[in-house]
Amino acid sequence: MIKIRTPLILVNFKTYPQGTGKKAIELAKTAEKVSLETDVYIGVVPSLTDISSIACLTSIPVFAQHVDPIKFGGFTGHILAESIKEAGAVGTLINHSERQLKLADIDATIKRTEELDLVSIVCANNPSVSAAVASLKPNMVAVEPPELIGTGIPVSKAKPEVVTKTVALIKQIDPSVVVLCGAGITAGKDVAAALRLGTEGVLVASGVVKARDPYKVLLEFAEATTKM
Amino acid sequence: MIKIRTPLILVNFKTYPQGTGKKAIELAKTAEKVSLETDVYIGVVPSLTDISSIACLTSIPVFAQHVDPIKFGGFTGHILAESIKEAGAVGTLINHSERQLKLADIDATIKRTEELDLVSIVCANNPSVSAAVASLKPNMVAVEPPELIGTGIPVSKAKPEVVTKTVALIKQIDPSVVVLCGAGITAGKDVAAALRLGTEGVLVASGVVKARDPYKVLLEFAEATTKM
Amino acid sequence: MIKIRTPLILVNFKTYPQGTGKKAIELAKTAEKVSLETDVYIGVVPSLTDISSIACLTSIPVFAQHVDPIKFGGFTGHILAESIKEAGAVGTLINHSERQLKLADIDATIKRTEELDLVSIVCANNPSVSAAVASLKPNMVAVEPPELIGTGIPVSKAKPEVVTKTVALIKQIDPSVVVLCGAGITAGKDVAAALRLGTEGVLVASGVVKARDPYKVLLEFAEATTKM
Amino acid sequence: MIKIRTPLILVNFKTYPQGTGKKAIELAKTAEKVSLETDVYIGVVPSLTDISSIACLTSIPVFAQHVDPIKFGGFTGHILAESIKEAGAVGTLINHSERQLKLADIDATIKRTEELDLVSIVCANNPSVSAAVASLKPNMVAVEPPELIGTGIPVSKAKPEVVTKTVALIKQIDPSVVVLCGAGITAGKDVAAALRLGTEGVLVASGVVKARDPYKVLLEFAEATTKM
Repeated sequence: MIKIRTPLILVNFKTYPQGTGKKAIELAKTAEKVSLETDVYIGVVPSLTDISSIACLTSIPVFAQHVDPIKFGGFTGHILAESIKEAGAVGTLINHSERQLKLADIDATIKRTEELDLVSIVCANNPSVSAAVASLKPNMVAVEPPELIGTGIPVSKAKPEVVTKTVALIKQIDPSVVVLCGAGITAGKDVAAALRLGTEGVLVASGVVKARDPYKVLLEFAEATTKM
Repeated sequence: MIKIRTPLILVNFKTYPQGTGKKAIELAKTAEKVSLETDVYIGVVPSLTDISSIACLTSIPVFAQHVDPIKFGGFTGHILAESIKEAGAVGTLINHSERQLKLADIDATIKRTEELDLVSIVCANNPSVSAAVASLKPNMVAVEPPELIGTGIPVSKAKPEVVTKTVALIKQIDPSVVVLCGAGITAGKDVAAALRLGTEGVLVASGVVKARDPYKVLLEFAEATTKM
Repeated sequence: MIKIRTPLILVNFKTYPQGTGKKAIELAKTAEKVSLETDVYIGVVPSLTDISSIACLTSIPVFAQHVDPIKFGGFTGHILAESIKEAGAVGTLINHSERQLKLADIDATIKRTEELDLVSIVCANNPSVSAAVASLKPNMVAVEPPELIGTGIPVSKAKPEVVTKTVALIKQIDPSVVVLCGAGITAGKDVAAALRLGTEGVLVASGVVKARDPYKVLLEFAEATTKM
Repeated sequence: MIKIRTPLILVNFKTYPQGTGKKAIELAKTAEKVSLETDVYIGVVPSLTDISSIACLTSIPVFAQHVDPIKFGGFTGHILAESIKEAGAVGTLINHSERQLKLADIDATIKRTEELDLVSIVCANNPSVSAAVASLKPNMVAVEPPELIGTGIPVSKAKPEVVTKTVALIKQIDPSVVVLCGAGITAGKDVAAALRLGTEGVLVASGVVKARDPYKVLLEFAEATTKM
């Protein structure tokens, strides 16, 4: 498996117009530029159709937004772990609040990523769900209170206790699991606050993708990781 | 929208190992070769992650296996019609028996494909469901009895009445809808039989993708379309 | 199958507090009272857990809110057509906008209700989906634009063309299908308008269930059916 | 909340013909009889439509097969915790392998049962998923390897390590959680083995419901709980 350095800034392109197709490639190149300039680890999470282009045209680590708990076979329209790996992804989000899975499928998907040396980043909506997820031995857990996603109200400020409680619960179950947090992060100080609360990185989306100047925002985020 | 000539041979790569990643590109090139040699219209339906490579490296029309009924926005892990179009797809399967949709979502997905001039091919499991789908004004309907998929028992032989009834019901509702059939098709004579029963093409998968020599099988299929 | 007289007023109790448990029985008795006083056909659609009590304690026709496309077997937590029939239901809603089904499951559920002589009332969100559903040969189709549900803005006033177009499309496909409409109906004049537009009844919920005086509202509705 | 004594024998009626409608009432009376004769705690899990009759006609604790994570409102066709409580249920299965839930919905459903003092019994398919579930603070976890369900091959014999590992993992996370096991249990010795492996009860279905003489089987099960 690829060695993921922390602190990690993970940028989810969702299905935003600014993060789809050619614009996805541009945005990935911007992220790559910031990463090279600051030596801070930045990963991108584009649409499935954009993984291969970005993996081909940049050196930045690319993650899928979703993988199904399937093996090779007759699964039309599903996302096979092997296919995202061959397209160049190094890992995947699992159970994002916009693409939630049944519990047994989260477990099965984590196992599929393990088999293929892909990094598994499981999303959770609160501390107890984060703890539940940690029992399934993913590489990372990203806690995001859904009510803050896309609001610009940073979780690290609005609900710091969600972050600290999540970190405490997860580390008690499995200290090797990397904890990220997300939702509402739009400024460097939000990133710094997230790290101070015990996380090892952030999962961001609109704060970067829909920003007027994604380069400037990502640079601020990256610099904030060194000033906590 | 791309003009789809009929008879059409549509090859669904599913998530078979022989149809994923580099092998998907090879298989698409084989299909292209047969199409150029025979002047028979052949389309391929690879995994989402392979659309852009195949669209880039071949001249063959590429279809997605699935699209979600969403617009640009916060839909992590979903498949946006705009993203498959920008990746190079000319259309998409909708409601394949392995990736079924709620009825209102089939309707909404067809509308999304219309907006983007993508060809919509809706799958249905029997004549009455095919008729239902025809009311939603897709470009094509592909009827596939699920119990025959992957069996090698051709629908055109085992259940010819399913095919003829489907053609009759659909044409009564909307004569402009192209009717395909699928399930169990492995030989040229199955293709010819499908066309004789009134369809304008076939949707095939394992019969081609898992064949020892896909070139030979596709050539037989293509030649059969001219001998009905 | 029970003979359903039209015009029909069908009251969906949803999971409102005013329509659950003991209050569901009271509300069903109120509906029964209005039906007996006016000789207008009124049906009630309570929660699954309340079907047997209401069927036992009133003479009013009781419908389920949902049935799954299953037969006897290992389907924990699913709703078997046989179980709602034995509990006393005479029919069921299928594919309500709050409980949507895959297309093939709508087809299979209608078939299950046919086998058991249960009345099938399939919900649809627009005219083309209503037409699609009519091809599956249900007993009734109820068209409800989801954006008007619970608003108090009656579909018969806000979108009369949705109603007339639905009636026209359905009757063309299968004249025996009874057409209902719903969404935003709170007054007798809305019911009368719905009938004038060609429907044979209404599907109502909050307009009755959450009314201060459901008796008064239902009486107004029932009287309106005779004044169109 | 009702005090659940252990060892507990929980009989899931699924949607078997022998456990639906009038036969469900008979079967519940049989379970009640065995419970009274042996003083062993037995609970029944009938279809939603049968809860109120069984709760009314027997003294045996009744559980729902499924509850949705909803509150009072517009949720047609969904199962409200308040409705099963008012019908007489004392608790509910959650996430049965035949009715699986998204992880966040398991969490939300457990919280809904807590609010209403209903007993929550969450099903899990393996030890790590059982551990995950235990972090969500349910009252009970029932581990059932899906591949053994309905086979007559008892989990306590075929996969004793699944049971012991589940007990160990759950108790480490929350010692107050009661552990049940299920799948393939058809004889008293299977029940005794389950208890010896550290569980506090069993979840059974076809072994009792489809037995020629459910009284005899349940009596054997009940007696086995005292002979471990």
